[in-house]
Amino acid sequence: MIKKVGVAILGLGVVGGGTYKTLVEHREYYKKTQGVDVSVESVLVRTKQKALDLGVDPAIIANSIAEVIANPAVDIVIETIGGCEAAKEYILAALKEGKSVVTANKELICKHWHELERTAKRNGCGLYFEASCVGGVPIIRTLLDGVQSNYVQEMLGIINGTTNYILTRMSKDGASYETVLKDAQSLGYAEADPTNDVEGFDAVYKLSILSSLAFHQKISYEHIFREGISKIDTKDIEFGKDMGYTLKLLAIAKNSEKGVELRVHPTFIRNSHPLTGVNDAFNAVYLKGDAVDNIMLYGRGAGSLPTASAVVSDVLYAATHSEIKYATFNNSVEGAEKVKYVSDFQSVYYVRLSVEDEVGSLARICGIFANNGVSIVEVGQKGHYLGDGEKPRVPVYLITNKTFESKINSAVKAINESNVATVEALIRIEE
Amino acid sequence: MIKKVGVAILGLGVVGGGTYKTLVEHREYYKKTQGVDVSVESVLVRTKQKALDLGVDPAIIANSIAEVIANPAVDIVIETIGGCEAAKEYILAALKEGKSVVTANKELICKHWHELERTAKRNGCGLYFEASCVGGVPIIRTLLDGVQSNYVQEMLGIINGTTNYILTRMSKDGASYETVLKDAQSLGYAEADPTNDVEGFDAVYKLSILSSLAFHQKISYEHIFREGISKIDTKDIEFGKDMGYTLKLLAIAKNSEKGVELRVHPTFIRNSHPLTGVNDAFNAVYLKGDAVDNIMLYGRGAGSLPTASAVVSDVLYAATHSEIKYATFNNSVEGAEKVKYVSDFQSVYYVRLSVEDEVGSLARICGIFANNGVSIVEVGQKGHYLGDGEKPRVPVYLITNKTFESKINSAVKAINESNVATVEALIRIEE
Repeated sequence: MIKKVGVAILGLGVVGGGTYKTLVEHREYYKKTQGVDVSVESVLVRTKQKALDLGVDPAIIANSIAEVIANPAVDIVIETIGGCEAAKEYILAALKEGKSVVTANKELICKHWHELERTAKRNGCGLYFEASCVGGVPIIRTLLDGVQSNYVQEMLGIINGTTNYILTRMSKDGASYETVLKDAQSLGYAEADPTNDVEGFDAVYKLSILSSLAFHQKISYEHIFREGISKIDTKDIEFGKDMGYTLKLLAIAKNSEKGVELRVHPTFIRNSHPLTGVNDAFNAVYLKGDAVDNIMLYGRGAGSLPTASAVVSDVLYAATHSEIKYATFNNSVEGAEKVKYVSDFQSVYYVRLSVEDEVGSLARICGIFANNGVSIVEVGQKGHYLGDGEKPRVPVYLITNKTFESKINSAVKAINESNVATVEALIRIEE
Repeated sequence: MIKKVGVAILGLGVVGGGTYKTLVEHREYYKKTQGVDVSVESVLVRTKQKALDLGVDPAIIANSIAEVIANPAVDIVIETIGGCEAAKEYILAALKEGKSVVTANKELICKHWHELERTAKRNGCGLYFEASCVGGVPIIRTLLDGVQSNYVQEMLGIINGTTNYILTRMSKDGASYETVLKDAQSLGYAEADPTNDVEGFDAVYKLSILSSLAFHQKISYEHIFREGISKIDTKDIEFGKDMGYTLKLLAIAKNSEKGVELRVHPTFIRNSHPLTGVNDAFNAVYLKGDAVDNIMLYGRGAGSLPTASAVVSDVLYAATHSEIKYATFNNSVEGAEKVKYVSDFQSVYYVRLSVEDEVGSLARICGIFANNGVSIVEVGQKGHYLGDGEKPRVPVYLITNKTFESKINSAVKAINESNVATVEALIRIEE
């Protein structure tokens, strides 16, 4: 017996359009393979023409959100508008009317999860958001239903396609950040204002969602350490290569008795690490559970059809499962306040300095690091700077032992306040 | 409210022991994160001491399967005995008593899926077998609930740890198959009789299960082309390296209008392919869906705790979902007979020949291939064979265009029947 399910799609942009296409083209296939007949009963678009161009039946183009919600044929509402204002209002309205919601909106889930979920719960509806993180890669389903037997200890992710494309190109072609960013913008991989991606905000939103599910605590995005890639110099990527490292914008989440540690920043990883092979616009999440050990999920982190794959898989899941998994942690403002964050985390650091080319400079630098409690395991000079000042200066790099962020920061401050050297780059290494 | 669920474990070997440990150690964690209190209510072991060594309460050690099944506290039966005889009998008995079953037994699922599932369905019970394929990697959950919106076009898998360990070592150390196999046996990575792994039977069972789920048709393991790694010569791995290829025992499944194509054999893949980085005992499945494009799942394909991760995730899934997903294809003998198999598949081939070192030899070889409808895109001589016969012979390798298996086979036969050369190795290349 085929179960009939009606859906509404709010917004027919990149993801919404792909979702419409996927649902329409696979309708017979889902009847056969899932036992569900999913029909698009309503769409809401700002410009009608967009819908007509996609071949949407004019009869199902709604004039208002109220019309969508009032439509008794709509069981599930798909939100692919993006942004936090209208999307939130529409989702709350749908949930209050007893309709389950599938959304691709990471910022919204990240910032308003507890309110949305509380409303869903109160109305016995589902709230699904696989598409909010890492496109078509079923990482949320995996955390909920695939490795839920594990205490997840660690998660390392390349979860932003734009920055991974930029870093891959910088690494392969030796091109500068500015040059590659322009290319990325003309290819549609980066937006006109790229801040959200290149400064790590997008990755922070996703990490907040993924670590909340993995660690069973509501991780607030405001507690995630964030550093973008806009200040990355190709020189450091080259230095890293020589040492056997690849540079990635990594989302890092660690869970231990000390608390949770969360950060997004450019990171050197060893070339032998499985994440090194994740290039261009591909994404991956590498996680460690106490039973399963290391597993990795890899795939396209964005794009119309890959993201639609996640949206529609959520729709099919909602249509074929009556139990709804709500957050099993205290998903409220109060719950979020109870989380113990490790803000002064530990890492190994790569530091590049511009150093006065004088006898004793290196000794003085090492002394400053030592005075600040940072021990150095490797130090070297690489090439020369073009002399343009009074005193000649040379590039020196060093690798520290594992140390606290607070200590490296005071060491860097002390170096910069000295007259012997200037810190030109500081990159964390994940061993 | 915490839901109480009682489980029985049949067999406390590598997987069963890990399962017991995982369940006991995470009991409080599952109460908090899954809302389920899972208690081990019964175990069945051949030698009681094994259970006692693991710390099992003697009171829950059953004397017979009948005792396990009759125990009203047991809701879910976990089968980790292996083999097809007793395991099948026990699982059928459990299902008939209305108890859901979680099993790690690939051979059993592969060979008796329809009978087991029919019984499960008739009794309203679940039958879960994530642990039967690729250890702790949630590939079955992903196929069922993560990428089910896709028409899966292709699946490439490294799904046997023993052979991947052997091939990785042969490739890294240049050691012979025999040497590495002995090491693998002494390390416990290969069994005393390694046939099941090295000849590809294990991978065939797993591919049968995974492709059935991916393609929504009951793929019989008897229709899967199988070639093991026991005849692989280190020389060919080296030749492949020079051409930019890595050798893997690949499980390949393709789905198109022509039918389904299934094979397990040593395969050269390009070094840029994500599967190349899957080394040692790690496994991975790389699949292509029409919406999600390429995704890959990577992790430990075997081992006590990684496999227990899959078993226990299934237990938790069974405990928290009331809908049971049975095969959505015609999972019966009749259904299996309707599948259209492509047996004369197409591939690119690497061929190594021992050739008479005479003027015109290469021309004659190329002629034989041409006569059999096989076109060659690259041919070369590499090094020398040590002369031990009357006529000096040299190693020649060639790469064909994409051609049919039947054509390459007749070409090989014709070469071997000629007096100009002998085919010493034939390896398929997946481009």
